[in-house]
Order: sequence, then structure tokens, then C-alpha cells
Amino acid sequence: MTNPSLLILPGDGIGQEVMAEVRKVIDWIGAKRDVTFDVSEDLVGGAAYDEHGVPLADETMAKAQEVDAVLLGAVGGPQYDDLDFSVKPERGLLRLRKEMDLFANLRPAQCFDALADFSSLKKDIVSGLDIMIVRELTSGVYFGEPRGISEVDGQRVGVNTQRYTEAEIERGARAAFELAMKRDKRLCSMEKANVMESGILWRDVVTEVSKDYPEVELSHMYADNGAMQLVRAPKQFDVIYTDNLFGDILSDCAAMLTGSLGMLPSASLGAPMENGRPKAMYEPVHGSAPDIAGEGKANPCACILSFAMALRYSFDMGAEADRLEAAVEKVLADGVRTGDLLNEAGVKPATTSEMGNAVIAAL
Amino acid sequence: MTNPSLLILPGDGIGQEVMAEVRKVIDWIGAKRDVTFDVSEDLVGGAAYDEHGVPLADETMAKAQEVDAVLLGAVGGPQYDDLDFSVKPERGLLRLRKEMDLFANLRPAQCFDALADFSSLKKDIVSGLDIMIVRELTSGVYFGEPRGISEVDGQRVGVNTQRYTEAEIERGARAAFELAMKRDKRLCSMEKANVMESGILWRDVVTEVSKDYPEVELSHMYADNGAMQLVRAPKQFDVIYTDNLFGDILSDCAAMLTGSLGMLPSASLGAPMENGRPKAMYEPVHGSAPDIAGEGKANPCACILSFAMALRYSFDMGAEADRLEAAVEKVLADGVRTGDLLNEAGVKPATTSEMGNAVIAAL
Ligand SMILES: CC(C)[C@H](C(=O)O)[C@@H](O)C(=O)O
Ligand SMILES: CC(C)[C@H](C(=O)O)[C@@H](O)C(=O)O
Repeated sequence: MTNPSLLILPGDGIGQEVMAEVRKVIDWIGAKRDVTFDVSEDLVGGAAYDEHGVPLADETMAKAQEVDAVLLGAVGGPQYDDLDFSVKPERGLLRLRKEMDLFANLRPAQCFDALADFSSLKKDIVSGLDIMIVRELTSGVYFGEPRGISEVDGQRVGVNTQRYTEAEIERGARAAFELAMKRDKRLCSMEKANVMESGILWRDVVTEVSKDYPEVELSHMYADNGAMQLVRAPKQFDVIYTDNLFGDILSDCAAMLTGSLGMLPSASLGAPMENGRPKAMYEPVHGSAPDIAGEGKANPCACILSFAMALRYSFDMGAEADRLEAAVEKVLADGVRTGDLLNEAGVKPATTSEMGNAVIAAL
Repeated sequence: MTNPSLLILPGDGIGQEVMAEVRKVIDWIGAKRDVTFDVSEDLVGGAAYDEHGVPLADETMAKAQEVDAVLLGAVGGPQYDDLDFSVKPERGLLRLRKEMDLFANLRPAQCFDALADFSSLKKDIVSGLDIMIVRELTSGVYFGEPRGISEVDGQRVGVNTQRYTEAEIERGARAAFELAMKRDKRLCSMEKANVMESGILWRDVVTEVSKDYPEVELSHMYADNGAMQLVRAPKQFDVIYTDNLFGDILSDCAAMLTGSLGMLPSASLGAPMENGRPKAMYEPVHGSAPDIAGEGKANPCACILSFAMALRYSFDMGAEADRLEAAVEKVLADGVRTGDLLNEAGVKPATTSEMGNAVIAAL
């Protein structure tokens, strides 16, 4: 097999800083395991707009299609708020998802023992929490046509379309069931089948797919109740499968339950490429945090753990992924903390780079 | 002015039981204040389907259009799960909302002092919480066309349409700004303007309306971040204005933060009728709870407090509303609790009717 290849797209805000720490980890693992990661770097989001006038250049898109995995930092910032919809930083991210056809977005919501106090929820409700949300990522209201703002009878009308085909629902469902098989074998599918026909189709297709996974216990829940249950008793869930828009909201809700947004990675996976590896992009769940960008305050762990997911899902290096995750847990247990993981006054927070170095040391 | 008229639609599950307690309150207030409420009762949801084969009969719809206020219990139950989409219990509720044109759904999320321990969130995060969510209720993806499941190139495709006109966004916004004026004068509008054009229009129109309310501080938030912020620090909000689908999810999330779903009322308001009263329907936020229906275990407070909202918004009896709300708080403080408000073993819960009687006694 050829060298594993990685395209790094730091993007905007704290993206640059946290990615610098991930590079240290990549180098360390490359050296230790005697693998050469072919790493290249490019622009996305506002950074790409500033350079090219578009949030993702065609050449960057082409590169992303060729590599084994894309590692993305974050996109967006207040200076881009007034840009036209078509060139907003987010469009760069959405183009990557769509053109790479990354239909399965894996968002683990995990509560780190050392950080359970950080949650706004009571400790016993969240400690040990470990859910995996699988969000359909390439369809639904994010991409459905018709869309746009038009004038009808003298007033503006805004339209977006929620549209799902059987095949789209099915492939995401298979990804979710496969994950459930490796976990606690429970899958909860969420939609609004009581109100939306697309939700009825969703429920039908997921039920159909479940016949191929008789060991997995399937349940269905309306998305509004899902939000409630996540807040009430999140540990009742193992894997959750839901659509692009519900997944956006519910995964953010679940992420916040853990109290440590700066710790949460994600993986977006597509179909296998010729070399057998899936098309893949990895990114932290947190955003570009423009308020602290450039100050060395950002927590690099979410991005480092996103690389751990890359090791696991793209490079078949599960043992290294485990080891990297254990190193991050050890650093937390040792009390090394960036500012977002501290609530006592007087304790000096670790800088982004100190946190990265501590992870390397723990490895 | 003619007698205030009320149509009671207990619906399914625990709807019947909780409504019996509300009737006691209606009678008590009528007697004390020497008002005659003209009360009639009819069927909705599964109960209507069982009788008429539809979840809301045309005659019931006509009655609802004539009264000053509709009081609805809850709809739905497992025995109706396999009904055709068009006659599901929910369709009865949605028909009422749509044909009465109840565009402003007011959902207070309030944490009762005596119940703060009940929340899955830490006490300091939720105690004193008092948010008002205004959800647009007659448009968006709930009612947009085209919709349905069709066959395209040999596979099924599910479609729903998110559609908002300027006028629809505006009238809900005005209701939200008016409420903000009577509260802490802060309004947060939530959408996904970074992904959906309908969200861009939403943001535009709300910003435009805000010019008529210079005293209200307006902010905008993406709905996914809204879900996070509700979990992280809900007390940052005063009034939230959002669309039908986001409102469904976010208001349930907010309701669960309080830990006392059995306590939360809602009001759905439309345009003023000839007599000056708005078209209105009041309902508890909780569902039909088929698992405990008929056992005298249900908490009637949410439904009683929904009637308090009716006193305030439909009957201009704000003082009586305050008094009723204070009576409910007193009952809680006195420790009278239905099972949903108890977590100690050994304490005998109050029955639905004991709870209702206690409220009357406190009045
Ligand atoms: C940045 C934005 C376009 C994106 C989304 O809405 O999907 C983000 O919220 C996410 O969840 O990855
Ligand atoms: C019962 C259902 C149709 C309804 C909705 O989705 O609006 C409910 O969840 C609500 O929030 O009132």
C-alpha cells in the first residue's frame, strides 16, 4: 500500500493553532511506527475566501478527492458574516461534504471522567456517558432543491426542501448499524414521522435495514422527544441515527451534555475508494472560536482526537488510535488543562502548545 | 361582553383525567368571580377517530372557531400508531392550529423553586430559570407543499418543504417582541441562516421588525448553537423566537431543563376575533402518557396552568391568572406531589384528583 496521505485544512480562527499540535502528533506517530504520512496543507473557509474569493478553491477540492483523509480545523468568523450566502465560509465545508459524498457523520458524545464536573448536568447523569450519533450528512434540507428566496405576490418567500431517497437513508443506516454491532448493539432512530412524510420514509427504511442486523435492538423516537431524552437521561442511548438537520441540532445538544466541547472529535465517512479506504474527513466539533483565536488558549484535544478517529477509520491503525486516546485521557487526569477545562480561579491554564506537548509526552 | 366561552378537548391518554381537575378550577373561579364560563366538551385525536373515523370532526372544528378559547389535553397513543398519516391523532391537533391560524405558540420554560432538584441539570444552572419560547406554529415544514412520498426512478423519495413568507415571519416576530417588552426586553431569534435561505429571510425580517421595538435587545443564534446554549446556560435567555420545527425541538429541550414537564403549559394565539379576544388554544406541553393513563397518577398542573394562561391571554383576568399560578406554587411548596415530582421511595404520591383539590384549597 502507498503511504497514507492527509490533507490538512486548518481553516479559520483557532483552526491554525490546534492543527499545529496535531502535526506534532502526526510526526510522532509517523516516526514511532515508521509510517510516512504524506501531509499537505491548504485553505478552506474564510481563509480561502481571502486568498481566492471562494471558500474552497477547485484545486483544493481536487486534492481532497485524492487523499486518504482530510483533516479540517474550523471555518467562519465575524468578518465573513456579511458575505453573500454562496461564498460564506460554511459553503466550503458543505462542498467538501457533498462532493466527497461523506454521508455518514460520526459524532461521539463522550464524557471524560476527569471532566464530568464540567457538565451543566449532574454528575451521575453524565459520568460514563458514551453515545455515538450518526448523522446523515449529504442530503436532506441542507442540499434539497428547490431552495432560495423569491418574490411571490409582492412579498419575499424563503424555501428549503427536505428530500430523502430510500438509498440515502439506507446507506447511512447501514453505517449506523455496523457501529452498533461493535458497540452495545442498540440503535435509536430519530425523525418526526408524526408530522413529516420524509420521516415516515426514514422510519420505514431503517426498519427494513434492521432485518439485516437481527442482533441490534432498534427503537424509534420523535426528534423532539429525542432532545428531551438526551437532556433527561442521555445514558439510555448507544447509537443514534438521524437526518442532516436533526443531527446538527441533536449532536450539538449531546456534545454540550458532556461539558467538554473542546474535547469532541468527529468523522465524516463516504464510500470506499479504490485502495479500500473510505473517503473521509475528520474535524473537531467545536467551531472557529474567533474570540480566542491567535492567543494560544484553544484546546487542541478535539482536533487531536479527530486524528485518532482518522487512525482508526482511515488507516486501520486502531491500536495507535487507542493509544492516542489514552494519552489524552492521561493528560487530563494529570490535571493539564487549557482554559476551557478549568473553573477555579488562580490556576494557570496550559497553552495550546503546552497541551499538545503534554499529549506527546504521555504517548 | 358575552360570557367567556371555552371548548374543552381532553383528547387521549391522561387528557381526560387532567381535564377533570381543570374543570374544578374553572368552576371555582367562575363562582368566586361571578363569571359564567360557557363550557362545552368534544373529541379530538384518537378519541375522535374512534368515534368519527377522523381525528377532528368538522363540527368540532366549527365549534373551535366560535369559542373564545380551546383547552386541549393531549393526543396520541400506541393503538393509533399504525393509522394512515392522514388520520393520525396528531392531524387533529395540526388542523386546529392551522384552521384557527394560531401562529404564535408561547411555551414558557420555568423552573419552579420547589422542583429545582428535579432537573437533570445542576441546581445553580436552572434555579430561577424563566424563558419564554415563541414558536411559529402555522407554517414551515409542518405545512409546506410539496410534501409526500413518491416513486422516482424506481425508489421511494420523501419530501417536505420548509416555506416561510415575510408576513408569516413578521407576525410571529411581533408577538415575540410584544412579550419581550413585558419581560426583560431581550429577544434571541434562532435559525440556520448559515445553511438555509429560509433562515436568511427569517433573520432579515426579524431584524426589520426590531426597528419598531428599539428598547428590545435583539440577538441571532444558529439553532444548533441554541440547543447547546440552552443546555450550557439557559438563564442567558429571556424570549426566544424560532420557527415551527426548530421550535418543536428547542422548546422540548428547554422544557426538560426545568425537570418538571408535568408543570409546563402553553398557549397558541392567533389574530383578534370580533370581540377583541385572540383566537386561542391552550394545552399542556406533556403528551398523552398512555403508560399511566387512567390510573390517577397524572399531574394536572400543566393543564391547570394552561388554563391560567387562558385567563391571562383570552379573558383579561391577569389577577386571577397570577392567583392560580401562586396557588400551584404553594401546593408544591407544601410538598403535595404527584409521582412525577417525587424521587424519594416511601413517600406516597398524591393522585391526580388530590393534586387538583389541593390547588383549589390553596386558592
Ligand atoms: C458550520 C455549519 C455549516 C455546520 C452544519 O450546520 O452542519 C456545523 O454546525 C456542523 O454541525 O458541522
Ligand atoms: C404532537 C405533535 C404533532 C406536536 C408537534 O410536533 O408540534 C408536539 O410535539 C408539540 O410540540 O406540540
